[in-house]
Amino acid sequence: MKPSIPKGTRDFGPVEMARRNYIFNTIRSVFELYGFQQIETPAMENLSTLTGKYGEEGDQLIFKILNSRIHDSKEKDALMKEFELSLDHSKNSEILTEKALRYDLTVPFARYVVQHREEITFPFKRYQIQPVWRADRPQKGRYREFFQCDADIIGSDSILNEAELIQIVDDVFNRLGINVTIKINNRKILEGIASFLGVQDDDKISDFISTIDKIDKISEEGVKHELSQLGLNDKQIIKLFEIFEEINKLKFLDNDKLVNDDLNKVKILTLEGLFLDKNEPHGGKGAYELNIFYEYLVNLNIKAKIEFDLTLARGLNYYTGAIFEVKANDVEIGSISGGGRYDNLTGIFGMHGISGVGISFGADRIYDVLLQTNKFPEFISFSTKILIIHVSDPKFPEGLFKNKSLLLLKELRNNEISTEIYPDLENDDKQFSYAKKRGIPFIILIKESELDSDKFKIKNMLTRESKMLSIPEIVEFVKK
Amino acid sequence: MKPSIPKGTRDFGPVEMARRNYIFNTIRSVFELYGFQQIETPAMENLSTLTGKYGEEGDQLIFKILNSRIHDSKEKDALMKEFELSLDHSKNSEILTEKALRYDLTVPFARYVVQHREEITFPFKRYQIQPVWRADRPQKGRYREFFQCDADIIGSDSILNEAELIQIVDDVFNRLGINVTIKINNRKILEGIASFLGVQDDDKISDFISTIDKIDKISEEGVKHELSQLGLNDKQIIKLFEIFEEINKLKFLDNDKLVNDDLNKVKILTLEGLFLDKNEPHGGKGAYELNIFYEYLVNLNIKAKIEFDLTLARGLNYYTGAIFEVKANDVEIGSISGGGRYDNLTGIFGMHGISGVGISFGADRIYDVLLQTNKFPEFISFSTKILIIHVSDPKFPEGLFKNKSLLLLKELRNNEISTEIYPDLENDDKQFSYAKKRGIPFIILIKESELDSDKFKIKNMLTRESKMLSIPEIVEFVKK
Repeated sequence: MKPSIPKGTRDFGPVEMARRNYIFNTIRSVFELYGFQQIETPAMENLSTLTGKYGEEGDQLIFKILNSRIHDSKEKDALMKEFELSLDHSKNSEILTEKALRYDLTVPFARYVVQHREEITFPFKRYQIQPVWRADRPQKGRYREFFQCDADIIGSDSILNEAELIQIVDDVFNRLGINVTIKINNRKILEGIASFLGVQDDDKISDFISTIDKIDKISEEGVKHELSQLGLNDKQIIKLFEIFEEINKLKFLDNDKLVNDDLNKVKILTLEGLFLDKNEPHGGKGAYELNIFYEYLVNLNIKAKIEFDLTLARGLNYYTGAIFEVKANDVEIGSISGGGRYDNLTGIFGMHGISGVGISFGADRIYDVLLQTNKFPEFISFSTKILIIHVSDPKFPEGLFKNKSLLLLKELRNNEISTEIYPDLENDDKQFSYAKKRGIPFIILIKESELDSDKFKIKNMLTRESKMLSIPEIVEFVKK
Repeated sequence: MKPSIPKGTRDFGPVEMARRNYIFNTIRSVFELYGFQQIETPAMENLSTLTGKYGEEGDQLIFKILNSRIHDSKEKDALMKEFELSLDHSKNSEILTEKALRYDLTVPFARYVVQHREEITFPFKRYQIQPVWRADRPQKGRYREFFQCDADIIGSDSILNEAELIQIVDDVFNRLGINVTIKINNRKILEGIASFLGVQDDDKISDFISTIDKIDKISEEGVKHELSQLGLNDKQIIKLFEIFEEINKLKFLDNDKLVNDDLNKVKILTLEGLFLDKNEPHGGKGAYELNIFYEYLVNLNIKAKIEFDLTLARGLNYYTGAIFEVKANDVEIGSISGGGRYDNLTGIFGMHGISGVGISFGADRIYDVLLQTNKFPEFISFSTKILIIHVSDPKFPEGLFKNKSLLLLKELRNNEISTEIYPDLENDDKQFSYAKKRGIPFIILIKESELDSDKFKIKNMLTRESKMLSIPEIVEFVKK
């Protein structure tokens, strides 16, 4: 029986790893250029840290760890009772599980900030690149183990931080060669609209926003239908879409930066006026914040296309201010990055009044975009520069020959040239074929006649050109 | 209530991360210099992949994932019955758990090789740096989540590979500045001795070897006691220690490489003679292999001290040839690296006759050694080079000023200088204190009077020296 791995998980082979590292290293180097510091948190958190933070649906998707002491038969009766109770209430008992795998990097980060508040210098700019686990139904492009790359600034409410994160997005995708559009909005604007429509209760506002978030997926008609199910009447729904129409009637032009800049400005100001008219200060504050944020972006000459999108909502409940989402222009795929401001994330762990703003990059989708647009650099597909091949003549004095090869090998590595020797006494063909399959660009073939020479025959596998070179010459030759 | 993390797990803050990355990057760069390719496997494996591979004790320490479907109340009766059965047999039922967290990197690697055999070019040289999880009782220096750094060559039985791994050890610890002793032995030698003593049955030989492995922990007397409990009689035990005495009577000298080299050689040859005398070809083969291995090491002029230690056994059952273990010379701590040859690791997944050899570095102990010997380089303790500080004068035109700062910020980052701006309108003291706490070596203070100048005042926080410099001059100044 061929062994396998759990569905929704993946092995990464050498080529995938080289490509993934290229993405991670690019993101990491930009994070560090902007002064973010790396942290890591454990894969397992206490179950109580995670439950209740992701909504009911999210809670169901948390992978829980089985307590290791359940094999103690003395506890049997208590365990049986607990287990039955847990079945009756469709939830896991503490006697079964107390720990779980992290579901995202945001809640563990909030937990980290509260736990280590005394050691942290605020504003705290941290980045974190680690896998997360979700018991989602596996499907194309959706995995049960995937990596998130998050940067957050916590302990500062300056809108400058929002601008810094958008610069990071711009810088990362420029370095990767991906053309993107960055959509921006502000949660207070959507809340202001809800209030103006007469949607009052907090939970309902949150559902209202989540429904708007689905407009790309289920279309305008779908959103209208869901809103009426939520309890909004026809008048409210018509009013909502009038506002959308009012703001969105001016269309963005594909490549005209100046026109688009002006358009964003006009939309934001129109909205600010609307909230002033309707006496909705909360929505007005959202438009004001968005205006400052957008002024920064224009001033910084962000290369990506910026689009104020009133229907951008972002699913997560903890956002309270600016929100943003990044889409690739040349590939049909969901958002490849997104984030926003949260005013009270650490509140769930008892530390209130700390505002933060964060961004998350989705490594898997970025991988797919680079693959589809053929933007992975060539150099990352091989690591070994030289393979040393030896002639497998049975009369050849093996010991002496190997020692000569080994010293050459050592000398090349001392010069930081990644070098291998074929370890077995195989025929030349097999050794050549290994170099070819591995994509190793140079080979050195050692023959008996060269044992007393200081020069070695090196061959470029691509051009098929051969040269007799000394070790320092080889170092120069392969470094070009 | 202050939030916490599960016992035996750790958060890593910015300073620890910088140090850990220094260790990982050093190991990674050596692995790649030697032509090893990186792979990653998922954190979760099917439970059946892991169970039965680590002995009974190991199996108990595997962290298991709770199946997510157990809340379905329709299945209640079946579940209750299964659960009771699992309690009665002190084992976890499949209805409770089918997946588990990896316990090491070796078994997932064997699974990977068998699963992807068609895509792999053999000999396959892979490295893997990932966390593993063990439900061990947490104690000082022992964690439930820790990182392993493994390199293996699989699909070649050439002893050259053993020599390559020892070179890697030598190279890694040289780069890290840690003085080490590398102990070597061969499992066939220990098996030969067992056979010569009349220990026949495979399980018993394996227990015999595991007992010898404890000599450092429980002393000679302890080993003698355990061997008699294993069923060896006094005559056998006396004979065993006569052999140890015969081989170990010559002592290594601390710093005399040539004498030590000769000593190793004498010991190996003595043992080869012994096995020839006693007609133990299996042990003889072990001594012969060790001799070739050792010849390579002498020829390659390994810098670390090499010690043939007949009592080195290594706990793991799958080793079949060379074994090695690395100890730090200057710090009292367990082994910081170890490995060996295994002839049939992939056999557990149905792919037989593939020999391999591997090495594993323990990042946590290496961390402790570097910390205790004060060998972490200074440069890794900070990443941000410059903090831009702004005067918080309420009359100061904030927008204009910020824009000027932002363009300076952008220009410095374009030159790959890691730079931050303090995002809030705080007083200067607070901003200075931030730079100090973060260990940022340079600050640029922006005042109203400089708004029309091309030069900026930059201060070295350590020397307290200040200069007025243009942007290109700043780039030069901080790069020195």
